[in-house]
Amino acid sequence: MKIFAYGIRDDEKPSLEDWKSAHPNIEVGYTQELLTAETATLAKGSVSAVVYQQLDYTREALTALAEVGVTNLSLRNVGTDNIDFEAAKEFNFNISNVPVYSPNAIAEHSMIQLSRLLRRTKALDAKIAKHDLRWAPTIGREMRMQTVGVIGTGNIGRVAIKILQGFGAKVVAYDKFPNAEIAEQGLYVDSLDELYAQADAVSLYVPGVPENHHMIDAAAISKMKDGVVIMNASRGNLMDIDAIIDGLNSGKISDFGMDVYEEEVGLFNEDWSGKDFPDAKIADLISRENVLVTPHTAFYTTKAVLEMVHQSMDAAVAFANGETPAIAVKY
Amino acid sequence: MKIFAYGIRDDEKPSLEDWKSAHPNIEVGYTQELLTAETATLAKGSVSAVVYQQLDYTREALTALAEVGVTNLSLRNVGTDNIDFEAAKEFNFNISNVPVYSPNAIAEHSMIQLSRLLRRTKALDAKIAKHDLRWAPTIGREMRMQTVGVIGTGNIGRVAIKILQGFGAKVVAYDKFPNAEIAEQGLYVDSLDELYAQADAVSLYVPGVPENHHMIDAAAISKMKDGVVIMNASRGNLMDIDAIIDGLNSGKISDFGMDVYEEEVGLFNEDWSGKDFPDAKIADLISRENVLVTPHTAFYTTKAVLEMVHQSMDAAVAFANGETPAIAVKY
Ligand SMILES: NC(=O)c1ccc[n+]([C@@H]2O[C@H](COP(=O)([O-])OP(=O)(O)OC[C@H]3O[C@@H](n4cnc5c(N)ncnc54)[C@H](O)[C@@H]3O)[C@@H](O)[C@H]2O)c1
Ligand SMILES: NC(=O)c1ccc[n+]([C@@H]2O[C@H](COP(=O)([O-])OP(=O)(O)OC[C@H]3O[C@@H](n4cnc5c(N)ncnc54)[C@H](O)[C@@H]3O)[C@@H](O)[C@H]2O)c1
Repeated sequence: MKIFAYGIRDDEKPSLEDWKSAHPNIEVGYTQELLTAETATLAKGSVSAVVYQQLDYTREALTALAEVGVTNLSLRNVGTDNIDFEAAKEFNFNISNVPVYSPNAIAEHSMIQLSRLLRRTKALDAKIAKHDLRWAPTIGREMRMQTVGVIGTGNIGRVAIKILQGFGAKVVAYDKFPNAEIAEQGLYVDSLDELYAQADAVSLYVPGVPENHHMIDAAAISKMKDGVVIMNASRGNLMDIDAIIDGLNSGKISDFGMDVYEEEVGLFNEDWSGKDFPDAKIADLISRENVLVTPHTAFYTTKAVLEMVHQSMDAAVAFANGETPAIAVKY
Repeated sequence: MKIFAYGIRDDEKPSLEDWKSAHPNIEVGYTQELLTAETATLAKGSVSAVVYQQLDYTREALTALAEVGVTNLSLRNVGTDNIDFEAAKEFNFNISNVPVYSPNAIAEHSMIQLSRLLRRTKALDAKIAKHDLRWAPTIGREMRMQTVGVIGTGNIGRVAIKILQGFGAKVVAYDKFPNAEIAEQGLYVDSLDELYAQADAVSLYVPGVPENHHMIDAAAISKMKDGVVIMNASRGNLMDIDAIIDGLNSGKISDFGMDVYEEEVGLFNEDWSGKDFPDAKIADLISRENVLVTPHTAFYTTKAVLEMVHQSMDAAVAFANGETPAIAVKY
């Protein structure tokens, strides 16, 4: 049995080699190139293709793949918006994705960034880099002294809560669909308003569905404590970035961390160094001492990449064996 | 009753005002100036002096203080090396210090820095600052995937363990005098060698007593895993810094965080920006992407400062009432 993987990055190779060693009877071919109508022939002789790309999986690409006999497609990521499902249906493609690779990657990142904001590490790091080794006035705050509002207690929010509890912080949580374990611990408040009233810091773990669009807007911010710290590693459309900037300017928001941005497509994961930066708001935020911007890197850990590679390879084998893996996409 | 405080910094004022509000019957005077033979007269009419300085508490200063009738001295910090105890004895000084102000301040800092090293935030921050928003190759590692060796399970080490457990990391601990609670959890290994063999990251929480001098030397490092991460927020003399630098150069040590340095007196808490920096080793370490240097700021949080101010003020009142506070220094 042979499996062919497209778009393999350098950081994925160790995980792929790892999987190969554990499956000596399965032949694995791979390329750095993405799946297109042209590269589809590379998969010839394979039972499944394993893929990860922003580029569309077009009718042409899927047709070319089906023509070389490959109709099993395992995505190494979660998003499936770029698949031509109509074409996929015509050729009876089996498709899988990786919806949960490492909630810890994102939860840890959000909590590390929150703790850094409290500790004012950006200001302190800048002082140290220029050899100003004085402490004052760059005094930090402790995680354990904070009441942290966790919005959304799904896979990632629940890991964030465990981290906060390890620090000894007080957690207040809100979710439309309460989780039994979190309810048992008595962490839920009855409304977002109640959470905003109590929280020294607010961190988001809800999906970017239309009903959550601009959940954090001027009205929401006005209900928060003066000097609140806000962290968002979930989805960019959850925030009205102008309201955030206003809050930072007025001092209502003391510190802000963001890993996601409503207009991030085409901006994040690109190299703008030495070029005109196309987004003045993000340039401004990056330059502020009380703001930490990361370009959607919360997920980017060795463990997450390993899970993406291994789960997709396992699903590719399952499809080849005529099984339906748990992560098969229903469409 | 009046208490007089010396060397009050701006960041201490909120805590002092706080204490004053809670003790309306006690008059509080304070100055930014340190306690010397000259400034001693400022305390005239007070029952106790509250102090914090690197400058020596000399025979002259103590004599001058005793002459204005003040023989109660409450330090806001832990170290008492700079007191002329012989002179203090002659005048029957009551002295207190603050040995435990906030173990969390130091434990949190050490764990935040460790998580940042694993996540390669220094490299990522530098990329983002110059508008290079690409993820690769700056991939992070997760705390939960690490086995962390905690050396010393006293006040601070035990808080660090709780934080690590919140992240879901595996903890292996070593202490000459095991703590019952940590032993019950089965976290201890039998020797430092065993800890070095198992740990992906090593963090120190032992005192800088002579027997611990250069505990982390070339021999110790050679027993650690290849690519080990080392964090030291305890005392500078625990490390042979040349062995650390060799380990970084060879790649044996992948990342290193330090808040303390054997030669830190006169170097840390000074502004060297725009001046000749006097320590080439620290300049080199500060410039490395896989090293985080902080100038003994682990303790520097609003909670720690509040405890230092409040505990010392409380002790000053106790002395004045003829009581012996728990934090009185026996000498
Ligand atoms: N930054 C990154 O790299 C990265 C990576 C993966 C996921 N994410 C994002 O993290 C977020 C959380 O992911 P997850 O896996 O924990 O999702 P999940 O589906 O497991 O949990 C989401 C929770 O939010 C709750 N929820 C939805 N709308 C809500 C609302 N308006 N108010 C209160 N609760 C609400 C749901 O009931 C659910 O419990 C998502 O936005 C996801 O897109 C970010
Ligand atoms: N960076 C900062 O701002 C800062 C501030 C305060 C304290 N500290 C330092 O943090 C360290 C820990 O402080 P603490 O309050 O937890 O001390 P502690 O006395 O409560 O605990 C120290 C522990 O180390 C153990 N120990 C001593 N020598 C050992 C050895 N050779 N091997 C194994 N265990 C050994 C002791 O048995 C004890 O359990 C100290 O070095 C202290 O000076 C740093």
